[in-house]
Amino acid sequence: MSQEKPLILIANDDSIYSKGIRVLTEIMSEMGEVVVVAPDTHQSGMGHAITLGAPLRVSQTKDFGPNILSYKCSGTPADCVKFGKHHILKGRKIDLVVSGINHGSNASISVLYSGTMSAAIEAAMEGIPAIGFSLCEYGSDADFSHCHDYVIKIAQKVLAHGLPKGLTLNVNFPAKSEVPIKGIKVAKQADAVYREYFEERKDPYNQPYYWMDGDLHNEDVNNGTDLDALAENYVSIVPIKYDMTDYAELAVMQSWDL
Amino acid sequence: MSQEKPLILIANDDSIYSKGIRVLTEIMSEMGEVVVVAPDTHQSGMGHAITLGAPLRVSQTKDFGPNILSYKCSGTPADCVKFGKHHILKGRKIDLVVSGINHGSNASISVLYSGTMSAAIEAAMEGIPAIGFSLCEYGSDADFSHCHDYVIKIAQKVLAHGLPKGLTLNVNFPAKSEVPIKGIKVAKQADAVYREYFEERKDPYNQPYYWMDGDLHNEDVNNGTDLDALAENYVSIVPIKYDMTDYAELAVMQSWDL
Repeated sequence: MSQEKPLILIANDDSIYSKGIRVLTEIMSEMGEVVVVAPDTHQSGMGHAITLGAPLRVSQTKDFGPNILSYKCSGTPADCVKFGKHHILKGRKIDLVVSGINHGSNASISVLYSGTMSAAIEAAMEGIPAIGFSLCEYGSDADFSHCHDYVIKIAQKVLAHGLPKGLTLNVNFPAKSEVPIKGIKVAKQADAVYREYFEERKDPYNQPYYWMDGDLHNEDVNNGTDLDALAENYVSIVPIKYDMTDYAELAVMQSWDL
Repeated sequence: MSQEKPLILIANDDSIYSKGIRVLTEIMSEMGEVVVVAPDTHQSGMGHAITLGAPLRVSQTKDFGPNILSYKCSGTPADCVKFGKHHILKGRKIDLVVSGINHGSNASISVLYSGTMSAAIEAAMEGIPAIGFSLCEYGSDADFSHCHDYVIKIAQKVLAHGLPKGLTLNVNFPAKSEVPIKGIKVAKQADAVYREYFEERKDPYNQPYYWMDGDLHNEDVNNGTDLDALAENYVSIVPIKYDMTDYAELAVMQSWDL
Protein backbone atom coordinates (compact mmCIF):
# COMPACT_ATOMS: atom_id res chain seq x y z
CA MET A 1 0.00 0.00 0.00
CA SER A 2 2.63 2.50 1.00
CA GLN A 3 4.39 1.99 -2.33
CA GLU A 4 1.27 3.23 -4.14
CA LYS A 5 1.14 6.44 -2.13
CA PRO A 6 2.54 9.51 -3.86
CA LEU A 7 5.71 10.97 -2.36
CA ILE A 8 5.13 14.60 -1.41
CA LEU A 9 7.84 17.07 -0.33
CA ILE A 10 6.68 20.07 1.69
CA ALA A 11 8.48 23.40 2.19
CA ASN A 12 7.57 26.98 3.05
CA ASP A 13 9.11 30.33 3.95
CA ASP A 14 7.41 31.15 7.27
CA SER A 15 9.59 28.48 8.96
CA ILE A 16 8.92 24.98 10.19
CA TYR A 17 7.29 26.44 13.31
CA SER A 18 4.47 28.24 11.48
CA LYS A 19 0.84 27.20 11.58
CA GLY A 20 0.52 27.21 7.79
CA ILE A 21 3.00 24.38 7.20
CA ARG A 22 1.44 22.38 10.03
CA VAL A 23 -1.98 22.67 8.39
CA LEU A 24 -0.58 21.82 4.94
CA THR A 25 1.28 18.78 6.30
CA GLU A 26 -1.86 17.46 7.97
CA ILE A 27 -3.82 17.83 4.75
CA MET A 28 -1.17 16.26 2.52
CA SER A 29 -0.77 13.33 4.93
CA GLU A 30 -4.27 12.30 3.89
CA MET A 31 -3.01 11.91 0.32
CA GLY A 32 0.48 10.49 0.41
CA GLU A 33 3.83 9.91 2.06
CA VAL A 34 4.98 13.26 3.32
CA VAL A 35 8.48 14.63 3.95
CA VAL A 36 8.94 18.15 5.33
CA VAL A 37 12.07 20.28 4.81
CA ALA A 38 11.55 23.85 5.98
CA PRO A 39 13.61 26.82 7.14
CA ASP A 40 14.47 27.07 10.84
CA THR A 41 13.78 30.83 10.77
CA HIS A 42 11.37 33.18 9.04
CA GLN A 43 12.38 33.59 5.37
CA SER A 44 9.57 35.76 4.02
CA GLY A 45 10.57 38.00 1.12
CA MET A 46 13.61 35.86 0.36
CA GLY A 47 12.56 35.39 -3.25
CA HIS A 48 14.61 32.80 -5.08
CA ALA A 49 17.69 33.31 -2.90
CA ILE A 50 20.05 30.36 -2.46
CA THR A 51 22.93 29.97 -0.05
CA LEU A 52 26.28 30.42 -1.83
CA GLY A 53 29.61 30.60 -0.06
CA ALA A 54 28.31 29.33 3.27
CA PRO A 55 27.38 25.86 4.49
CA LEU A 56 23.92 24.71 5.59
CA ARG A 57 22.87 23.20 8.90
CA VAL A 58 20.10 20.64 8.67
CA SER A 59 18.65 18.50 11.45
CA GLN A 60 15.76 16.16 11.89
CA THR A 61 12.80 17.30 14.01
CA LYS A 62 9.90 15.56 15.68
CA ASP A 63 7.55 18.51 15.27
CA PHE A 64 5.14 16.65 13.01
CA GLY A 65 4.85 13.51 15.11
CA PRO A 66 6.48 10.09 14.85
CA ASN A 67 5.09 9.21 11.40
CA ILE A 68 6.34 12.17 9.41
CA LEU A 69 9.96 12.65 8.41
CA SER A 70 10.78 16.31 8.93
CA TYR A 71 13.90 18.47 8.83
CA LYS A 72 14.70 22.06 9.69
CA CYS A 73 17.29 23.84 7.56
CA SER A 74 19.32 26.99 8.11
CA GLY A 75 18.97 27.95 4.44
CA THR A 76 16.41 29.58 2.19
CA PRO A 77 13.16 28.02 0.91
CA ALA A 78 14.85 27.16 -2.40
CA ASP A 79 17.74 25.55 -0.47
CA CYS A 80 15.20 23.39 1.40
CA VAL A 81 13.81 21.97 -1.85
CA LYS A 82 17.31 21.36 -3.24
CA PHE A 83 18.36 19.60 -0.02
CA GLY A 84 15.16 17.56 0.07
CA LYS A 85 15.53 16.40 -3.51
CA HIS A 86 19.28 15.94 -3.80
CA HIS A 87 20.15 14.70 -0.31
CA ILE A 88 17.26 13.45 1.82
CA LEU A 89 15.23 11.90 -1.01
CA LYS A 90 18.18 11.26 -3.33
CA GLY A 91 17.29 8.55 -5.84
CA ARG A 92 13.56 8.58 -5.09
CA LYS A 93 10.93 10.01 -7.44
CA ILE A 94 9.10 12.93 -5.85
CA ASP A 95 5.54 13.11 -7.18
CA LEU A 96 4.64 16.56 -5.90
CA VAL A 97 6.19 19.50 -4.07
CA VAL A 98 3.85 21.77 -2.14
CA SER A 99 4.87 24.96 -0.39
CA GLY A 100 3.03 26.97 2.26
CA ILE A 101 0.40 27.52 3.30
CA ASN A 102 1.88 31.01 3.36
CA HIS A 103 0.71 33.50 5.97
CA GLY A 104 -0.08 36.35 3.57
CA SER A 105 -0.92 36.80 -0.11
CA ASN A 106 1.49 35.84 -2.87
CA ALA A 107 -0.81 37.06 -5.63
CA SER A 108 0.25 39.52 -8.33
CA ILE A 109 3.92 40.56 -8.37
CA SER A 110 4.44 39.17 -4.85
CA VAL A 111 5.23 35.91 -6.62
CA LEU A 112 8.68 37.38 -7.38
CA TYR A 113 9.47 38.28 -3.76
CA SER A 114 7.98 35.16 -2.23
CA GLY A 115 10.14 32.46 -0.68
CA THR A 116 7.11 30.18 -0.62
CA MET A 117 6.59 30.47 -4.37
CA SER A 118 10.32 30.21 -5.09
CA ALA A 119 10.42 26.86 -3.26
CA ALA A 120 7.67 25.64 -5.59
CA ILE A 121 9.33 27.17 -8.67
CA GLU A 122 12.63 25.51 -7.67
CA ALA A 123 10.83 22.15 -7.80
CA ALA A 124 9.44 22.97 -11.25
CA MET A 125 12.98 23.77 -12.41
CA GLU A 126 13.86 20.23 -11.33
CA GLY A 127 10.95 18.84 -13.35
CA ILE A 128 8.69 18.11 -10.36
CA PRO A 129 5.00 19.18 -10.37
CA ALA A 130 4.70 21.93 -7.77
CA ILE A 131 2.10 24.10 -6.08
CA GLY A 132 2.51 27.11 -3.80
CA PHE A 133 -0.42 27.83 -1.45
CA SER A 134 -0.97 31.18 0.26
CA LEU A 135 -3.68 32.69 2.43
CA CYS A 136 -4.54 36.40 2.22
CA GLU A 137 -4.06 36.82 5.96
CA TYR A 138 -0.80 37.48 7.77
CA GLY A 139 -1.63 36.62 11.39
CA SER A 140 0.40 33.82 12.97
CA ASP A 141 -2.85 32.21 14.15
CA ALA A 142 -4.69 32.72 10.83
CA ASP A 143 -7.76 30.57 10.15
CA PHE A 144 -6.98 28.06 7.37
CA SER A 145 -10.12 25.93 7.85
CA HIS A 146 -11.72 26.93 4.53
CA CYS A 147 -8.60 25.89 2.58
CA HIS A 148 -8.73 22.14 3.28
CA ASP A 149 -11.09 20.96 0.55
CA TYR A 150 -9.50 23.19 -2.09
CA VAL A 151 -5.96 22.05 -1.25
CA ILE A 152 -7.09 18.43 -1.63
CA LYS A 153 -8.93 19.12 -4.88
CA ILE A 154 -6.09 21.05 -6.52
CA ALA A 155 -3.38 18.61 -5.38
CA GLN A 156 -5.42 15.63 -6.59
CA LYS A 157 -5.90 17.29 -9.98
CA VAL A 158 -2.15 17.87 -10.29
CA LEU A 159 -1.33 14.31 -9.24
CA ALA A 160 -3.87 13.01 -11.79
CA HIS A 161 -3.09 15.35 -14.73
CA GLY A 162 0.56 16.07 -13.97
CA LEU A 163 1.84 19.49 -14.96
CA PRO A 164 3.76 20.39 -18.12
CA LYS A 165 7.52 20.71 -17.52
CA GLY A 166 8.36 24.08 -16.05
CA LEU A 167 4.93 24.90 -14.66
CA THR A 168 4.09 25.84 -11.06
CA LEU A 169 0.67 26.77 -9.69
CA ASN A 170 0.39 29.92 -7.57
CA VAL A 171 -2.73 29.32 -5.45
CA ASN A 172 -4.10 32.07 -3.22
CA PHE A 173 -7.02 31.77 -0.79
CA PRO A 174 -9.18 34.69 0.34
CA ALA A 175 -9.03 35.28 4.09
CA LYS A 176 -11.69 33.44 6.06
CA SER A 177 -14.88 35.50 6.35
CA GLU A 178 -18.64 35.21 6.67
CA VAL A 179 -18.88 35.12 2.89
CA PRO A 180 -18.53 31.62 1.44
CA ILE A 181 -15.80 30.94 -1.15
CA LYS A 182 -17.40 31.04 -4.61
CA GLY A 183 -15.07 28.50 -6.24
CA ILE A 184 -11.77 28.52 -8.13
CA LYS A 185 -10.66 30.87 -10.91
CA VAL A 186 -7.64 30.33 -13.14
CA ALA A 187 -6.19 33.80 -13.60
CA LYS A 188 -3.22 35.83 -14.78
CA GLN A 189 -0.68 37.56 -12.53
CA ALA A 190 -2.01 41.07 -11.86
CA ASP A 191 0.39 43.83 -12.94
CA ALA A 192 0.21 45.80 -9.69
CA VAL A 193 3.05 47.87 -8.24
CA TYR A 194 4.38 48.47 -4.73
CA ARG A 195 4.59 52.17 -3.88
CA GLU A 196 7.29 52.24 -1.27
CA TYR A 197 8.61 54.79 1.17
CA PHE A 198 11.47 54.74 3.64
CA GLU A 199 11.05 56.09 7.13
CA GLU A 200 14.29 57.45 8.56
CA ARG A 201 14.95 56.98 12.28
CA LYS A 202 17.99 57.57 14.44
CA ASP A 203 19.55 54.87 16.61
CA PRO A 204 20.71 55.63 20.20
CA TYR A 205 24.08 56.68 18.74
CA ASN A 206 22.38 59.22 16.46
CA GLN A 207 23.04 57.19 13.32
CA PRO A 208 20.27 56.84 10.71
CA TYR A 209 18.47 53.67 9.74
CA TYR A 210 15.53 53.13 7.42
CA TRP A 211 12.31 51.15 7.57
CA MET A 212 10.84 50.24 4.20
CA ASP A 213 7.08 50.23 3.97
CA GLY A 214 4.66 50.39 1.08
CA ASP A 215 1.33 49.48 -0.39
CA LEU A 216 0.36 47.41 -3.38
CA HIS A 217 -1.43 49.55 -5.95
CA ASN A 218 -3.40 47.76 -8.63
CA GLU A 219 -4.66 49.41 -11.77
CA ASP A 220 -4.81 46.09 -13.63
CA VAL A 221 -8.48 45.56 -12.72
CA ASN A 222 -11.33 43.63 -14.39
CA ASN A 223 -8.72 41.92 -16.48
CA GLY A 224 -8.91 38.28 -15.42
CA THR A 225 -6.23 38.68 -12.76
CA ASP A 226 -5.60 36.85 -9.52
CA LEU A 227 -6.41 40.04 -7.59
CA ASP A 228 -9.77 40.28 -9.40
CA ALA A 229 -10.58 36.67 -8.48
CA LEU A 230 -9.62 37.15 -4.82
CA ALA A 231 -11.64 40.38 -4.61
CA GLU A 232 -14.70 38.38 -5.70
CA ASN A 233 -13.94 35.73 -3.04
CA TYR A 234 -12.67 33.07 -5.42
CA VAL A 235 -9.59 30.94 -4.86
CA SER A 236 -7.12 32.11 -7.53
CA ILE A 237 -4.70 29.89 -9.46
CA VAL A 238 -2.04 31.42 -11.69
CA PRO A 239 -0.03 29.00 -13.85
CA ILE A 240 3.56 30.25 -13.47
CA LYS A 241 6.52 29.45 -15.71
CA TYR A 242 10.17 30.01 -14.87
CA ASP A 243 11.08 30.71 -18.47
CA MET A 244 11.11 34.50 -18.21
CA THR A 245 11.88 35.07 -21.92
CA ASP A 246 9.58 37.60 -23.54
CA TYR A 247 9.14 35.83 -26.89
CA ALA A 248 7.10 38.63 -28.49
CA GLU A 249 9.85 41.11 -27.68
CA LEU A 250 12.54 38.65 -28.78
CA ALA A 251 11.01 38.77 -32.28
CA VAL A 252 10.81 42.58 -32.20
CA MET A 253 14.42 42.93 -31.08
CA GLN A 254 15.70 40.91 -34.03
CA SER A 255 15.06 44.08 -36.05
CA TRP A 256 17.18 46.24 -33.75
CA ASP A 257 20.47 47.07 -35.42
CA LEU A 258 22.72 45.39 -32.85
CA MET B 1 23.85 70.65 -20.56
CA SER B 2 23.55 68.57 -17.41
CA GLN B 3 19.76 68.71 -17.68
CA GLU B 4 19.95 66.93 -21.02
CA LYS B 5 21.97 64.06 -19.62
CA PRO B 6 20.03 60.91 -18.84
CA LEU B 7 19.80 59.97 -15.16
CA ILE B 8 21.22 56.49 -14.64
CA LEU B 9 20.93 54.45 -11.44
CA ILE B 10 23.51 51.68 -10.96
CA ALA B 11 23.27 48.63 -8.69
CA ASN B 12 24.78 45.14 -8.51
CA ASP B 13 25.03 42.10 -6.23
CA ASP B 14 28.79 41.64 -5.89
CA SER B 15 28.89 44.71 -3.59
CA ILE B 16 29.99 48.28 -4.08
CA TYR B 17 33.62 47.16 -3.66
CA SER B 18 33.67 44.88 -6.72
CA LYS B 19 35.54 45.60 -9.92
CA GLY B 20 32.45 45.01 -12.09
CA ILE B 21 30.45 47.93 -10.69
CA ARG B 22 33.50 50.18 -10.89
CA VAL B 23 33.88 49.36 -14.59
CA LEU B 24 30.16 49.82 -15.24
CA THR B 25 30.10 53.16 -13.43
CA GLU B 26 33.04 54.45 -15.47
CA ILE B 27 31.34 53.45 -18.70
CA MET B 28 27.95 54.89 -17.79
CA SER B 29 29.55 58.16 -16.68
CA GLU B 30 30.38 58.73 -20.35
CA MET B 31 26.65 58.69 -21.11
CA GLY B 32 24.82 60.42 -18.30
CA GLU B 33 24.44 61.51 -14.70
CA VAL B 34 25.20 58.47 -12.61
CA VAL B 35 24.03 57.53 -9.09
CA VAL B 36 25.28 54.30 -7.49
CA VAL B 37 23.39 52.38 -4.77
CA ALA B 38 24.93 48.99 -4.10
CA PRO B 39 25.13 46.40 -1.32
CA ASP B 40 27.87 46.76 1.31
CA THR B 41 28.48 43.00 1.25
CA HIS B 42 28.44 40.23 -1.34
CA GLN B 43 24.83 39.37 -2.28
CA SER B 44 25.30 36.79 -5.02
CA GLY B 45 22.50 34.25 -5.29
CA MET B 46 20.11 36.50 -3.39
CA GLY B 47 17.53 36.33 -6.16
CA HIS B 48 14.69 38.80 -5.72
CA ALA B 49 15.01 38.88 -1.92
CA ILE B 50 13.92 42.06 -0.15
CA THR B 51 14.45 43.02 3.48
CA LEU B 52 11.26 42.61 5.49
CA GLY B 53 11.04 42.96 9.24
CA ALA B 54 14.45 44.59 9.64
CA PRO B 55 15.67 48.11 8.93
CA LEU B 56 18.30 49.13 6.39
CA ARG B 57 21.54 51.01 6.93
CA VAL B 58 22.55 53.28 4.07
CA SER B 59 25.49 55.66 3.93
CA GLN B 60 27.18 57.81 1.32
CA THR B 61 30.59 56.74 0.04
CA LYS B 62 33.37 58.46 -1.86
CA ASP B 63 34.49 55.30 -3.62
CA PHE B 64 33.65 56.60 -7.09
CA GLY B 65 35.33 59.99 -6.76
CA PRO B 66 33.97 63.44 -6.02
CA ASN B 67 31.66 63.68 -9.05
CA ILE B 68 29.55 60.57 -8.53
CA LEU B 69 26.90 60.26 -5.88
CA SER B 70 27.23 56.80 -4.38
CA TYR B 71 25.72 54.90 -1.46
CA LYS B 72 26.34 51.55 0.19
CA CYS B 73 23.34 49.72 1.58
CA SER B 74 23.02 46.86 4.05
CA GLY B 75 20.15 45.33 2.05
CA THR B 76 19.70 43.20 -1.03
CA PRO B 77 20.16 44.26 -4.66
CA ALA B 78 16.38 44.78 -5.02
CA ASP B 79 16.40 46.89 -1.81
CA CYS B 80 19.13 49.07 -3.36
CA VAL B 81 16.96 49.87 -6.39
CA LYS B 82 13.93 50.57 -4.19
CA PHE B 83 15.97 52.85 -1.93
CA GLY B 84 17.53 54.60 -4.91
CA LYS B 85 14.19 55.26 -6.58
CA HIS B 86 11.97 56.00 -3.58
CA HIS B 87 14.40 57.79 -1.28
CA ILE B 88 17.61 59.10 -2.85
CA LEU B 89 16.10 60.04 -6.24
CA LYS B 90 12.56 60.57 -4.99
CA GLY B 91 10.64 62.78 -7.41
CA ARG B 92 13.21 62.57 -10.20
CA LYS B 93 12.69 60.59 -13.41
CA ILE B 94 15.24 57.81 -13.73
CA ASP B 95 15.95 57.14 -17.41
CA LEU B 96 17.80 53.86 -17.02
CA VAL B 97 18.79 51.35 -14.35
CA VAL B 98 21.84 49.20 -15.05
CA SER B 99 23.07 46.39 -12.83
CA GLY B 100 26.44 44.65 -12.75
CA ILE B 101 28.74 44.04 -14.39
CA ASN B 102 28.34 40.74 -12.60
CA HIS B 103 31.36 38.56 -11.92
CA GLY B 104 29.94 35.33 -13.37
CA SER B 105 27.30 34.27 -15.87
CA ASN B 106 23.62 35.02 -15.35
CA ALA B 107 22.56 33.22 -18.51
CA SER B 108 19.93 30.46 -18.60
CA ILE B 109 18.08 29.76 -15.32
CA SER B 110 20.69 31.68 -13.33
CA VAL B 111 18.50 34.72 -14.03
CA LEU B 112 16.19 33.44 -11.26
CA TYR B 113 18.95 33.16 -8.63
CA SER B 114 20.75 36.34 -9.60
CA GLY B 115 20.72 39.39 -7.38
CA THR B 116 22.15 41.41 -10.27
CA MET B 117 19.26 40.51 -12.55
CA SER B 118 16.70 40.98 -9.77
CA ALA B 119 17.92 44.55 -9.27
CA ALA B 120 17.25 45.19 -12.95
CA ILE B 121 13.90 43.37 -12.86
CA GLU B 122 12.90 45.42 -9.80
CA ALA B 123 13.44 48.56 -11.89
CA ALA B 124 11.29 47.13 -14.69
CA MET B 125 8.54 46.46 -12.13
CA GLU B 126 8.72 50.20 -11.37
CA GLY B 127 8.38 51.03 -15.07
CA ILE B 128 12.05 52.00 -15.60
CA PRO B 129 14.04 50.63 -18.57
CA ALA B 130 16.62 48.28 -17.12
CA ILE B 131 19.59 46.17 -18.17
CA GLY B 132 21.57 43.58 -16.23
CA PHE B 133 25.13 42.98 -17.44
CA SER B 134 27.17 39.88 -16.56
CA LEU B 135 30.54 38.47 -17.56
CA CYS B 136 31.12 34.73 -17.83
CA GLU B 137 34.09 34.90 -15.48
CA TYR B 138 34.00 34.78 -11.70
CA GLY B 139 37.43 36.09 -10.73
CA SER B 140 37.49 39.25 -8.61
CA ASP B 141 40.05 40.76 -11.02
CA ALA B 142 38.22 39.62 -14.17
CA ASP B 143 39.04 41.37 -17.46
CA PHE B 144 36.07 43.50 -18.56
CA SER B 145 37.93 45.40 -21.31
CA HIS B 146 36.01 43.78 -24.19
CA CYS B 147 32.65 44.78 -22.68
CA HIS B 148 33.01 48.57 -22.99
CA ASP B 149 31.79 49.14 -26.55
CA TYR B 150 28.90 46.68 -26.18
CA VAL B 151 27.71 48.22 -22.92
CA ILE B 152 27.67 51.65 -24.60
CA LYS B 153 25.89 50.34 -27.71
CA ILE B 154 23.19 48.43 -25.82
CA ALA B 155 22.57 51.22 -23.29
CA GLN B 156 22.34 53.81 -26.09
CA LYS B 157 19.83 51.63 -27.94
CA VAL B 158 17.68 51.33 -24.84
CA LEU B 159 17.87 55.07 -24.14
CA ALA B 160 16.90 55.75 -27.77
CA HIS B 161 14.19 53.06 -28.23
CA GLY B 162 13.01 52.81 -24.64
CA LEU B 163 11.79 49.38 -23.54
CA PRO B 164 8.17 48.20 -23.37
CA LYS B 165 6.77 48.29 -19.80
CA GLY B 166 7.86 45.23 -17.86
CA LEU B 167 10.88 44.36 -19.95
CA THR B 168 14.47 43.88 -18.72
CA LEU B 169 17.48 42.89 -20.80
CA ASN B 170 19.69 40.07 -19.53
CA VAL B 171 23.06 40.71 -21.21
CA ASN B 172 25.90 38.21 -20.83
CA PHE B 173 29.44 38.63 -22.15
CA PRO B 174 31.79 35.75 -22.99
CA ALA B 175 34.95 35.72 -20.89
CA LYS B 176 37.86 37.60 -22.44
CA SER B 177 39.90 35.35 -24.71
CA GLU B 178 42.10 35.36 -27.79
CA VAL B 179 38.99 34.88 -29.91
CA PRO B 180 37.29 38.15 -30.86
CA ILE B 181 33.62 38.66 -29.94
CA LYS B 182 31.50 37.91 -33.02
CA GLY B 183 28.69 40.37 -32.24
CA ILE B 184 25.38 40.35 -30.38
CA LYS B 185 22.64 37.72 -30.47
CA VAL B 186 19.13 38.16 -29.10
CA ALA B 187 18.28 34.79 -27.59
CA LYS B 188 15.92 32.87 -25.36
CA GLN B 189 16.66 31.71 -21.80
CA ALA B 190 18.21 28.23 -22.07
CA ASP B 191 16.29 25.56 -20.16
CA ALA B 192 19.30 24.10 -18.38
CA VAL B 193 19.26 22.49 -14.93
CA TYR B 194 21.61 22.53 -11.95
CA ARG B 195 22.54 19.04 -10.80
CA GLU B 196 23.39 19.59 -7.18
CA TYR B 197 24.99 17.56 -4.45
CA PHE B 198 25.61 18.19 -0.78
CA GLU B 199 28.91 17.36 0.82
CA GLU B 200 28.56 16.50 4.50
CA ARG B 201 31.35 17.57 6.86
CA LYS B 202 31.68 17.55 10.62
CA ASP B 203 32.48 20.66 12.64
CA PRO B 204 35.02 20.54 15.54
CA TYR B 205 32.12 19.56 17.84
CA ASN B 206 31.26 16.59 15.61
CA GLN B 207 28.07 18.19 14.30
CA PRO B 208 27.25 17.91 10.59
CA TYR B 209 27.09 20.74 8.10
CA TYR B 210 26.58 20.68 4.34
CA TRP B 211 28.21 22.40 1.37
CA MET B 212 26.03 22.68 -1.70
CA ASP B 213 27.77 22.34 -5.03
CA GLY B 214 26.58 21.53 -8.51
CA ASP B 215 26.97 21.92 -12.24
CA LEU B 216 24.75 23.45 -14.87
CA HIS B 217 23.67 20.80 -17.36
CA ASN B 218 22.25 22.01 -20.64
CA GLU B 219 20.35 19.82 -23.05
CA ASP B 220 18.58 22.81 -24.60
CA VAL B 221 21.20 23.14 -27.35
CA ASN B 222 21.09 24.56 -30.89
CA ASN B 223 17.81 26.16 -29.98
CA GLY B 224 18.50 29.89 -30.14
CA THR B 225 19.42 30.11 -26.47
CA ASP B 226 21.71 32.44 -24.58
CA LEU B 227 24.04 29.51 -23.84
CA ASP B 228 24.24 28.75 -27.57
CA ALA B 229 25.14 32.37 -28.32
CA LEU B 230 27.81 32.50 -25.61
CA ALA B 231 29.31 29.19 -26.73
CA GLU B 232 29.77 30.74 -30.18
CA ASN B 233 31.44 33.81 -28.59
CA TYR B 234 28.53 36.19 -29.11
CA VAL B 235 27.24 38.65 -26.50
CA SER B 236 23.78 37.28 -25.57
CA ILE B 237 20.72 39.40 -24.82
CA VAL B 238 17.57 37.77 -23.44
CA PRO B 239 14.49 40.02 -23.17
CA ILE B 240 13.06 39.14 -19.74
CA LYS B 241 9.56 39.85 -18.45
CA TYR B 242 8.44 39.72 -14.84
CA ASP B 243 4.94 38.58 -15.76
CA MET B 244 5.48 34.88 -15.05
CA THR B 245 1.97 33.84 -16.17
CA ASP B 246 1.99 30.91 -18.58
CA TYR B 247 -0.78 32.13 -20.90
CA ALA B 248 -0.85 28.98 -23.02
CA GLU B 249 -1.37 26.87 -19.91
CA LEU B 250 -3.90 29.35 -18.54
CA ALA B 251 -6.08 28.61 -21.58
CA VAL B 252 -5.59 24.84 -21.15
CA MET B 253 -6.48 24.96 -17.47
CA GLN B 254 -9.81 26.63 -18.16
CA SER B 255 -10.95 23.17 -19.25
CA TRP B 256 -9.91 21.55 -15.97
CA ASP B 257 -12.98 20.78 -13.88
CA LEU B 258 -12.09 22.97 -10.90
